Amino acid sequence: MSVERSIAIFSPGLLGGSLAKTIQQRMPGVEVRVWARRDEAVEEVRQVLPGVIASKDISAVMQGVSLAVLCMPIQHMPDIARQMALCELAEDLIVTDVGSVKGGVVSELEAIFLPTKAAFLGSHPMAGSQRTGLANARGDLFHQAACILTPTAHTRPEHLARLRMFWVKLGCRMQEMTPQQHDHCVARVSHLPHAMAVLTTLAALSKDTRVLDSSAGGFRDTTRVAGGDPAMWAGIFMQNRAEVMAALQDASSVLREFLEMLESMDEEALRRFLAQAKALRDLLPAV
Amino acid sequence: MSVERSIAIFSPGLLGGSLAKTIQQRMPGVEVRVWARRDEAVEEVRQVLPGVIASKDISAVMQGVSLAVLCMPIQHMPDIARQMALCELAEDLIVTDVGSVKGGVVSELEAIFLPTKAAFLGSHPMAGSQRTGLANARGDLFHQAACILTPTAHTRPEHLARLRMFWVKLGCRMQEMTPQQHDHCVARVSHLPHAMAVLTTLAALSKDTRVLDSSAGGFRDTTRVAGGDPAMWAGIFMQNRAEVMAALQDASSVLREFLEMLESMDEEALRRFLAQAKALRDLLPAV
Repeated sequence: MSVERSIAIFSPGLLGGSLAKTIQQRMPGVEVRVWARRDEAVEEVRQVLPGVIASKDISAVMQGVSLAVLCMPIQHMPDIARQMALCELAEDLIVTDVGSVKGGVVSELEAIFLPTKAAFLGSHPMAGSQRTGLANARGDLFHQAACILTPTAHTRPEHLARLRMFWVKLGCRMQEMTPQQHDHCVARVSHLPHAMAVLTTLAALSKDTRVLDSSAGGFRDTTRVAGGDPAMWAGIFMQNRAEVMAALQDASSVLREFLEMLESMDEEALRRFLAQAKALRDLLPAV
Repeated sequence: MSVERSIAIFSPGLLGGSLAKTIQQRMPGVEVRVWARRDEAVEEVRQVLPGVIASKDISAVMQGVSLAVLCMPIQHMPDIARQMALCELAEDLIVTDVGSVKGGVVSELEAIFLPTKAAFLGSHPMAGSQRTGLANARGDLFHQAACILTPTAHTRPEHLARLRMFWVKLGCRMQEMTPQQHDHCVARVSHLPHAMAVLTTLAALSKDTRVLDSSAGGFRDTTRVAGGDPAMWAGIFMQNRAEVMAALQDASSVLREFLEMLESMDEEALRRFLAQAKALRDLLPAV
């Protein structure tokens, strides 16, 4: 049994679609509604997600729901949230999101819902794929994914407990931190690796793509995420600009160190440098 | 039926051990011999690879073999090759290797065997794993792996044809290029990605390893190869120093570009930059 009656998902992309599928599988009896901006998207939801109520009418979708999840690109969230705040909202409504950056957007969204009956509380389920769109939605996308909740001084403990329970039911491993800690953390373990995969791809292939014929698993894995959606990632990098720049400056420093060891042919120092990276990488449990 | 009678493998690590297993599976009737430096390694080969003749006596191992494969770290190859060249060698012997760098080592090894009955011809099967050692040897390690042969002006066409046939039987997709082209190519698609995985790991985790709790598949894949053997990779980077430095300098330039776009908040330029990387990465066929 879930305490949620009815859940509204805003925008049926990879995350929204996967969320809808997973709720249907893991929370039987809970109504799932999906809002989409365009008629064709509403139609696609009806075909791909049978049993889901799809509509482009925000106030109809919001009617009586106990949980609403914003799944569109971060930059579009405040606009939709303001329209949601004008609707008739249930007393127990929690609004959350799945955005990859929290610093600016959590305070903006929180402020939008403060004067209403509803409360905003940020979520970031760290699930995704370089394959975007509803067509790639999967019912197991959240299985064992880390999910970070970002409560603030305004967050009520019962809302935190309910939202935590929601994500746990979908299969997530939960963490809690401030929006600022979140942005620092994901800059290091998500945004930096993405940027580095992009830089590796460009440095490897820009001059001559024929070298690709000799590539193996190392190139494939190291660059996988560079296949992600450019518009979405440009938005993420800009939203988390300060933390991403700090991480890239650290990467630039170690790159200079690496080049100096090669320049001076200091194989012993290079070995220690590689051993330090291996010791850190080995902290990650094997799958 | 294979044209090879008996194949000698020098050093039973991940590659040597996997080679022995794969030959046993795919070339029935061909004798497999493994040379190891230490008594304990000889003993381990006998336990892990039943049916293989293991010894630390180079001349006994070389007696009558038609193919010998050097599988030790590159820096140790010339020393062992000089000892092999002093043995009684079969008329039709081809000596090859599995080293990741070809420029310096191919000419050195070729020169060692030029005065003998045998011929050296370089191979680089692009198979491997961050898990090293005989214990991780697999009979499918070479399946669908790219394998680069590096013939020179001294290479006889019938040797090239025989060595090509050998690797094809083990499951490899073959390419041919000069040792210099090889080193350029692998610097871009193998050594650069490895260096970038190391830099990503250090920049992400050096200051605070707790961010690892929030990591997901992107971090895991982008940094996977940073778990590789530090001594082996320090050797590879030093051997291919000039090409690796050129690739890392290109990476440094694109990193500067990335930082400038963030600095100037030019989201449109960043989107084009990411789209260019995606277009290049998408050239790699999906698995």
